[in-house]
Amino acid sequence: MRFQAINDIAEICARKGVEHVVLCPGSRCAPLTLAFTRHPDILTRTFSDERSAGFIGMGISQQTRKPAVLVCTSGSAAYNFAPAVSEAFFSEIPLIVFTADRPSEWIAQHDGQTIYQQNIFGLHVKKSFNLPQDYDHADSLWAINRIINEAINLAQQEPKGPVHINTPFREPLYPAKEESTTYSDNIRIIEDHVASYELIERDKEFIGSAFQKYKNIIIVAGQHDYDKSLQDALLTCAIQHHIPVIADIISNLNDTDYPIKHSDLFLGQATDGVKKTLQPDLLITFGKSLISKNLKVFLRNYAPKAHWHIQPGGVTADTFKSVTNIFHTFPVDFFKFIGSKQREETFESQKQYNYGKLWEIEERRAIRCLSEYFPQPELSELELVQQILSQIPSRSTLHVANSMSVRYANFIGLADKNEIKVYANRGTSGIDGCTSTVVGHALTSNGLHVLITGDLAFFYDRNAFWHNYALPNLRIVLLNNHGGLIFNMIDGPASQPEAPEYFITHQKLNAQKLSEEFGFEYLKLDNKRKMKNFVKDLFETDNKTKILELESDLQLNKTIFENLKLKIKKSYES
Amino acid sequence: MRFQAINDIAEICARKGVEHVVLCPGSRCAPLTLAFTRHPDILTRTFSDERSAGFIGMGISQQTRKPAVLVCTSGSAAYNFAPAVSEAFFSEIPLIVFTADRPSEWIAQHDGQTIYQQNIFGLHVKKSFNLPQDYDHADSLWAINRIINEAINLAQQEPKGPVHINTPFREPLYPAKEESTTYSDNIRIIEDHVASYELIERDKEFIGSAFQKYKNIIIVAGQHDYDKSLQDALLTCAIQHHIPVIADIISNLNDTDYPIKHSDLFLGQATDGVKKTLQPDLLITFGKSLISKNLKVFLRNYAPKAHWHIQPGGVTADTFKSVTNIFHTFPVDFFKFIGSKQREETFESQKQYNYGKLWEIEERRAIRCLSEYFPQPELSELELVQQILSQIPSRSTLHVANSMSVRYANFIGLADKNEIKVYANRGTSGIDGCTSTVVGHALTSNGLHVLITGDLAFFYDRNAFWHNYALPNLRIVLLNNHGGLIFNMIDGPASQPEAPEYFITHQKLNAQKLSEEFGFEYLKLDNKRKMKNFVKDLFETDNKTKILELESDLQLNKTIFENLKLKIKKSYES
Repeated sequence: MRFQAINDIAEICARKGVEHVVLCPGSRCAPLTLAFTRHPDILTRTFSDERSAGFIGMGISQQTRKPAVLVCTSGSAAYNFAPAVSEAFFSEIPLIVFTADRPSEWIAQHDGQTIYQQNIFGLHVKKSFNLPQDYDHADSLWAINRIINEAINLAQQEPKGPVHINTPFREPLYPAKEESTTYSDNIRIIEDHVASYELIERDKEFIGSAFQKYKNIIIVAGQHDYDKSLQDALLTCAIQHHIPVIADIISNLNDTDYPIKHSDLFLGQATDGVKKTLQPDLLITFGKSLISKNLKVFLRNYAPKAHWHIQPGGVTADTFKSVTNIFHTFPVDFFKFIGSKQREETFESQKQYNYGKLWEIEERRAIRCLSEYFPQPELSELELVQQILSQIPSRSTLHVANSMSVRYANFIGLADKNEIKVYANRGTSGIDGCTSTVVGHALTSNGLHVLITGDLAFFYDRNAFWHNYALPNLRIVLLNNHGGLIFNMIDGPASQPEAPEYFITHQKLNAQKLSEEFGFEYLKLDNKRKMKNFVKDLFETDNKTKILELESDLQLNKTIFENLKLKIKKSYES
Repeated sequence: MRFQAINDIAEICARKGVEHVVLCPGSRCAPLTLAFTRHPDILTRTFSDERSAGFIGMGISQQTRKPAVLVCTSGSAAYNFAPAVSEAFFSEIPLIVFTADRPSEWIAQHDGQTIYQQNIFGLHVKKSFNLPQDYDHADSLWAINRIINEAINLAQQEPKGPVHINTPFREPLYPAKEESTTYSDNIRIIEDHVASYELIERDKEFIGSAFQKYKNIIIVAGQHDYDKSLQDALLTCAIQHHIPVIADIISNLNDTDYPIKHSDLFLGQATDGVKKTLQPDLLITFGKSLISKNLKVFLRNYAPKAHWHIQPGGVTADTFKSVTNIFHTFPVDFFKFIGSKQREETFESQKQYNYGKLWEIEERRAIRCLSEYFPQPELSELELVQQILSQIPSRSTLHVANSMSVRYANFIGLADKNEIKVYANRGTSGIDGCTSTVVGHALTSNGLHVLITGDLAFFYDRNAFWHNYALPNLRIVLLNNHGGLIFNMIDGPASQPEAPEYFITHQKLNAQKLSEEFGFEYLKLDNKRKMKNFVKDLFETDNKTKILELESDLQLNKTIFENLKLKIKKSYES
């Protein structure tokens, strides 16, 4: 009976669509480990560093679009999941986090690995459950069934996110050697028929009439998973109504050239006069955070009259201090609705057309400056990123680490590319699990996964490779400037005498030994003439994990970037 | 005024005895970083992986016996401190943990690295403070001064432990380039005149009279820092009253041969008849947790009539389910008091003498079995540990990692050694920061630091070496069986078909590449004949970080250990 209740946790998970379980070693979690590994419909993998395991699990959820399960033993193991749990919370990725525990009466009794695990993830889970530790009463079995159902349902409700199930176990933790593991046939599953989030008539009327009222409408897309139907609906709507769409590289609107992708570059250099002409009346937003700092500053300084935000559930972040209307619907439905309305050719719509052209002019300026700027005589990170983004094969997945890599990629942008999915851990913007997240993706899909990362993020999370699973579809571009370049880029820290030691934090490693340790192919880019061939080699589908490393100078990279900005600035003067 | 309030945080810390500050890179924490790095009486160091940094800071506190300060930036960085914070909490190590934060109104607004940092460490800090984020009102300045004073005072009250100070900062985060950093002369310091925890007369009378009443008294020492005066007082008292002292290697009572150090070995094999004769009437305990599982089981099964626990402050862990009296005093004072009482030569005291002899017989049996058992023909981890413990130079510090290493060391025990201090992270018994903790010790003391560790703990925490500080006094003994040996030792997991993959979790690395990466001397022990010389070489004081690695077979190590147990078991049959 005891193990049956635990085994059935795996059964409920499987029936509710869980396919992948990430296990971390330990004795206290053994009942869950065995229940999951022995279940025929579940694929389990094991990782010894729980911090990395947490991000791998998150990457799996993100890639498969189904909630992954994490399991760890009792004690500080749970806290090592916390960085990934907080990232999943703010990135709204469903995760079912099991933390095995001692029975509650043994907490803080100096007996083995115990800490206070109930509610250990604080506000960073949608809910923290605690399973019964005794199975004698029928109510305990009812509670286990109900909680597992509830937790999986809750994780997938909007906004999606992690849930925590603390699972205290009494000994014995292991079944007898000959004991077989069975799963109940007759088990209750609670189906969650989720809300449709359809726009109601009253809101449709409101949108329709308001839409007539505003000229100078823009759409700003925050971070959003790649979604072909959303992209189609959005662009149809935008083109029809002449609405500029401002997007970051992580907005995943990169399949066409319609969106304004370089706002961070030109808004940082444009004159106040130009910026004034770009001020919107109505700002429509969807998705999560923006990378483009200059876009955020612009929208705060040149505030719209109205700001509509679209998100199915949850509380809206008021990033630009301007939200006036929140529409609880899916963006794809919202844009389909507006796209279905005919544009009336009026004086107002002509104004909107002209307004769109103003954004287009600025975007073209940035693209022209970029294309004129390269190639530079010296080998820099920015140019390598430019090469990577222009050569990356269609239908690959691009992962960009925090914090300089994602900025580089956003400055360059993706053009003429089809169906590149872009991911970055921008929920908490940490460097603690960027590589592990990619490993989760690579393990659960066949396509090519390309990670652009700096040295701090890369070595921080090197345990991403400490396991026994092959990663034939993983390619890493390592921008190694032996420190945190971002701190050399921004004026505040760069001007302090403590900068090299305490902000940039010089570090000595390169990836050669690491590549040897894990049997990765190592491409050391030490000469500009090698760049094209190395990038080509990197993308060859020959089933080898590869690292292309560029070791370069902090100052050179800063100069290359400063000169680009200067070039754009000058274009406003001529 | 703004930066003055922050700079003065460093001034208060310095005046209250903080000497070492561990910084982690970031922009949000820049005001604290600059305040601490520029302070003349504070030594700062920087580490990029916050998980490792947390344990390094904890090791520094433990080594220097003064609270170290930790500083990290906003976001998931704080969660990476959590494993160390929870270990410090249960190990009662004072730590002042600053987590820089965005101003509260910007939390969860999709703007940079923000998570919910208030109370982020849950029940694993003594208190979580939140500093004011505005300095306009005089009350804010008062609050900052008061909170810093309070936090440092609280961390050092019994039981000692970590405190959390969340510190929201508004921009600008950096002083102007020419702005100098000053510290206020006239700053309030709140001196905490801590309780003396002296035994009061009534308790002395109670102890005195009770002490006459019981025969079969034992003292069991849990984990305790090395303390010469405690050791002296305890042994004087124990010898005078014929009281057996049962100690683990981490009880740090290793300077003499009086204590019973091998209870885990003989209690695991002794017959019920023998164990019955060892049952205590009065159990006196102090210190924290025990490693010896067999001792714990014995004390639970052969419960004393009374159990006195000695600890100055806090709630007592009831590890053996038998506590009846808690004395809130320091163990050294308690034993000095009992030691000051004359033993009366009565029939009862003769019984106590005989009882002590029974323990002595068992201890001698274990020592004899151990000394007869070695050398074994094959090179095993247990024998290497035995060599290390017998050759380790006096006045070194021995660190033992979780979880098999600390058990090995406890089975072997330290004999004929002077002033070896022994440390292990037994608060949460995690493998997540064992090496980093040692790094904290090694950085802040000149003596030799010897770490015995398994491969899982070692590679888990390899970022312990990812910094720019030399470790000339660090020696590592790496017992690499390419997995978690503990899971092969205990029957539950070992008998499951999933054992190799999901419990032992085979891992492939050895320390050669790592040694090359960090420039450590690498001694690969692949032949038994090399053992003596390698151990000698390891302990040479030649200012080199060294790793002595033994790669050996899981099954061999299990057999070697099983055979030792068998030998002891047989000794009871003859």
